[in-house]
Amino acid sequence: MAFDRLIENIVKKQNPTVAGLDPKLAYIPEHIKSEAFARCGKTLEGAAQALWVYNKGLIDALYDVVPAVKPQAAYYEMYGWQGVRTLEKTIKYAREKGLFVITDAKRNDIGTTMEAYACAHLGVTDIDGECVEAFGADALTVNGYLGSDGIKPVTDLAAKSDKGIFVLVKTSNPSSGELQNLELAGEESIYLHMGKLCERWGEELMGKYGYSGVGAVVGATYPEQLKELRAELSHTFFLVPGYGAQGGTADDIAGAFDENGLGAIVNSSRGIMCAWQKEGCDGSCYAQAARREALNMKKLLTDVTGEIKLP
Amino acid sequence: MAFDRLIENIVKKQNPTVAGLDPKLAYIPEHIKSEAFARCGKTLEGAAQALWVYNKGLIDALYDVVPAVKPQAAYYEMYGWQGVRTLEKTIKYAREKGLFVITDAKRNDIGTTMEAYACAHLGVTDIDGECVEAFGADALTVNGYLGSDGIKPVTDLAAKSDKGIFVLVKTSNPSSGELQNLELAGEESIYLHMGKLCERWGEELMGKYGYSGVGAVVGATYPEQLKELRAELSHTFFLVPGYGAQGGTADDIAGAFDENGLGAIVNSSRGIMCAWQKEGCDGSCYAQAARREALNMKKLLTDVTGEIKLP
Repeated sequence: MAFDRLIENIVKKQNPTVAGLDPKLAYIPEHIKSEAFARCGKTLEGAAQALWVYNKGLIDALYDVVPAVKPQAAYYEMYGWQGVRTLEKTIKYAREKGLFVITDAKRNDIGTTMEAYACAHLGVTDIDGECVEAFGADALTVNGYLGSDGIKPVTDLAAKSDKGIFVLVKTSNPSSGELQNLELAGEESIYLHMGKLCERWGEELMGKYGYSGVGAVVGATYPEQLKELRAELSHTFFLVPGYGAQGGTADDIAGAFDENGLGAIVNSSRGIMCAWQKEGCDGSCYAQAARREALNMKKLLTDVTGEIKLP
Repeated sequence: MAFDRLIENIVKKQNPTVAGLDPKLAYIPEHIKSEAFARCGKTLEGAAQALWVYNKGLIDALYDVVPAVKPQAAYYEMYGWQGVRTLEKTIKYAREKGLFVITDAKRNDIGTTMEAYACAHLGVTDIDGECVEAFGADALTVNGYLGSDGIKPVTDLAAKSDKGIFVLVKTSNPSSGELQNLELAGEESIYLHMGKLCERWGEELMGKYGYSGVGAVVGATYPEQLKELRAELSHTFFLVPGYGAQGGTADDIAGAFDENGLGAIVNSSRGIMCAWQKEGCDGSCYAQAARREALNMKKLLTDVTGEIKLP
């Protein structure tokens, strides 16, 4: 139910890290690219094949260290439907390896259209009576600007299956305050209001560890708000971007966790994926470098959380 | 530049309608489905092929009547990467027929990730020096919850090419007010604030007919707000959903247009796509029924706008 499986994964691996899988070509070692381009040319197909080889190597190196991965849909869509096919393969492979998969697609729409996104990314598609899984992730990031009509179709599906969502509440980017920090006439900020909506939307989706299936995206780059939201939203699990490359430190995210070291999972994308470039090591060792960085991040985060325990 | 080409298309066809291409299997006539399923089985591939045949028939029947089409990404993603391949084929075919293509994907993210979405849907992807078009639409719907960081990567691309975006401002759904209607401490609503951001974001993208490349999504179901926003946002072109099936009438959208009958394009999806079901005619005539409904809608809308003129 809800995020129970994610929470159990975190406790088992003693690691509140989600590894972002945002495979830009620039991050991919030369030997992988040149082999794919030799086979298919510098085409969308060639790029999509390189992405797949790269991702598979990362997953093989990380699956026993991290509890979850988070492919970012944009980096697959930019390589056309061929890239989107790699997204599907990546999700399937990661799940086979026991990883909890969060598709970061920030989808949003209303009614039957949002239902279509829910089927696409978390559920099954009915093809004239045959139920087929299209992408089949465990969780999806969504944008709540459209209100309940855009959330209910996904929580309805989540209630019937073992899935969850993360709603954008306070994002990690510099301009996130332009809208999210505005003060409402009722004297609370928009992000806090959105956070409270998450608590409400999650009421029907309570898991056994005190967190619902409706989580929130809250950036590591705003530690004050992270702490405020943790205090206000006691049943909402946080997905925390902005750690590392965007500037958030382990101390910054301390406020995201509860007394058991639960309540949040911290994303690192470039930090882990591009560790080989940062280390200056050869591209052929990219997966080992990613593993080293993931272990390093695990240590930094668990220095903050202490032992992570089920409540 | 910006929406100039869309505006010229509207004037040429004397029709401010955009035909939604949201091809749910339930809308597709039996003969198209059974042929595709006979070839590929009740699979994602079979569904994707049925979608393509259906869309091609609609485009062939509509391209000289409507200025634009709007494929809704969710209805392609639900059929997996195979469905996404049909999205790509549909966009390409519609553009070959001279249609302005708005991909309704409500994408949103920050920085390089939003750049990836911009490349995917409006621009080109750089594959080790080769620039390849992934989806190549003319415009994209986007969600502005993340502020400028989520918009600038797209407007930067739009400024260099002939593309535009529509930002969600006041959406057509029943719960849109839950967030969008909240009053800010400064005494304006969130949707109006978002609308004013559109005006600001569009400053660098002014077209020759007085509208920028940053448009707004404003629902036909809220006529008062539509009128208010038209008065406030004089350089922002509106994409108006909610007409027909969602309850908006031609009178409701009167306030969306300027004195030249420009300033807005009104979407109809189910109304046109499912006209054959509503008329009770045979599935083999679905395209002709769609054309009849599009002509009917054109008449209703131009009764409201009068002759549509370039300023």
